[in-house]
Amino acid sequence: MMRMAGATPVFIPLRSKAVCGKKWSSSDWTLDPQELESKFNSKTKAIILNTPHNPLGKVYTKEELQLIAHLCIKYDTLCISDEVYEWLVYTGNKHLKIATFPGMWERTVTIGSAGKTFSVTGWKLGWSIGPHHLIKHLQTVQQNTIYTCATPLQEALAQALWIDIKRMDDPECYFNSLPKELEVKRDRIVHLLESVGLKPIVPDGGYFIIADVSSIDADLSDMMNNEPYDYKFVKWMTKNKKLAAIPVSAFCNSETKSQFEKFVRFCFIKKDSTLDAAEEIIKTWNRQRSQSGQNV
Amino acid sequence: MMRMAGATPVFIPLRSKAVCGKKWSSSDWTLDPQELESKFNSKTKAIILNTPHNPLGKVYTKEELQLIAHLCIKYDTLCISDEVYEWLVYTGNKHLKIATFPGMWERTVTIGSAGKTFSVTGWKLGWSIGPHHLIKHLQTVQQNTIYTCATPLQEALAQALWIDIKRMDDPECYFNSLPKELEVKRDRIVHLLESVGLKPIVPDGGYFIIADVSSIDADLSDMMNNEPYDYKFVKWMTKNKKLAAIPVSAFCNSETKSQFEKFVRFCFIKKDSTLDAAEEIIKTWNRQRSQSGQNV
Repeated sequence: MMRMAGATPVFIPLRSKAVCGKKWSSSDWTLDPQELESKFNSKTKAIILNTPHNPLGKVYTKEELQLIAHLCIKYDTLCISDEVYEWLVYTGNKHLKIATFPGMWERTVTIGSAGKTFSVTGWKLGWSIGPHHLIKHLQTVQQNTIYTCATPLQEALAQALWIDIKRMDDPECYFNSLPKELEVKRDRIVHLLESVGLKPIVPDGGYFIIADVSSIDADLSDMMNNEPYDYKFVKWMTKNKKLAAIPVSAFCNSETKSQFEKFVRFCFIKKDSTLDAAEEIIKTWNRQRSQSGQNV
Repeated sequence: MMRMAGATPVFIPLRSKAVCGKKWSSSDWTLDPQELESKFNSKTKAIILNTPHNPLGKVYTKEELQLIAHLCIKYDTLCISDEVYEWLVYTGNKHLKIATFPGMWERTVTIGSAGKTFSVTGWKLGWSIGPHHLIKHLQTVQQNTIYTCATPLQEALAQALWIDIKRMDDPECYFNSLPKELEVKRDRIVHLLESVGLKPIVPDGGYFIIADVSSIDADLSDMMNNEPYDYKFVKWMTKNKKLAAIPVSAFCNSETKSQFEKFVRFCFIKKDSTLDAAEEIIKTWNRQRSQSGQNV
């Protein structure tokens, strides 16, 4: 899309610190400050930030956001901040809006999602928050593309926001109850993935979890050869193990694809009965692996 | 939008036959066959057809569509056929789909609307019908822009279509009952507009009616001067008479604007109580005009 608009996208990957003995966390993944600044120059128009991060689940810290804000101001750059998982942060983490940092309001468009906030992704509603001089251009695009959102769902969303904004301190408030409910599911799936020898990256936010699947010696010889490893792996797993995941390299550009093609993304915002079924599949799979000496 | 895509839009206006003594009908407005063919050449990529037509209410006849089909085939041109008012045709008229004409299926994308079909314009649902080699490109655009429509509303629409397709011959079927109900409202508003000396163009389809307002000697001296007459007129009428309409020149390009700036578009898909209120406004206005010697 950027290229169609005449822009040149510049990519910067999150990189992980070495983790020895302890759990691997999304907070171990960071942007290298030197590398980040090296991507900025006088032609840089905008940076796209995503916190909490999909697929990693990283919740950017105050210090990390401070650095990004500093660079945006120094290079007079816009910030498009995708914060659709803003309410889905787990114990010990806090979601911060970069638009609230000094000097950032006037250069930031913050993107929110009804689908992610209220677990109604099929409603296709969301919002952009920013200063008039930026939002007015989004209004022009909106007017000339989708024209309007589905009005009955907008009304329902307005009611939902109204109800929950009035009870922000109440544990029943969906903003509070959903992450509590999801944290249990997260911990369950971490345990489950570890039990079969996978190394999951424990997310601090969002409802996805990435795991390195390179320890699984899957027989992918039936799969198409010209695809990245993770594409082949998830197709193989879906077909043979009836367990679905998303290849992480789908989120990468051509340079960083190879770095992530041993990772797959699982989703844990599921009914307990679905997680039970996943547990059963993984345990059976693990038994088969132990019996056959790893190769599945 | 066409210019952004690198295309050159070519406009061709519908032109009216002289009507003396009889009612002015949308069927009096036609494309001149010579003029139409003169707009086609080897570089013509597509024609946009709209039947039933907004704002005129014209329902294209078999002969008119046959000519357009002939030109599309002769010049190997696509046809984008906007048929969102397909069910709203009045006694004596029949909606025809140009995609059903010989040689047209493979070059036509037919556009339909749940909003217009079931009077739920806020639902923002519709469909495009065409051969796979054309629709696949629309799927690419859909995937990369809106991604999906609102799924709860899609389910409701599927149910509605399912119910009404099974009772197509039943007067209760919405496809039949809505135009019946609207025809009464159309006839009412025609009579109303005529009663105050306006000359409406009686629509054969759709739920809009155009009227020539040049006989109304409105005092528009307060309005901004750099706007077309109809823009000023509808703003003046909305503010001073509490009656809203749409300027017809909004539908025109710069060359045809002047031809239509004495026309405004009224909408008659309204509750009877709303039409009662409109009638009251128009009658009062008419009394004032008679008393003051025309100038309002």
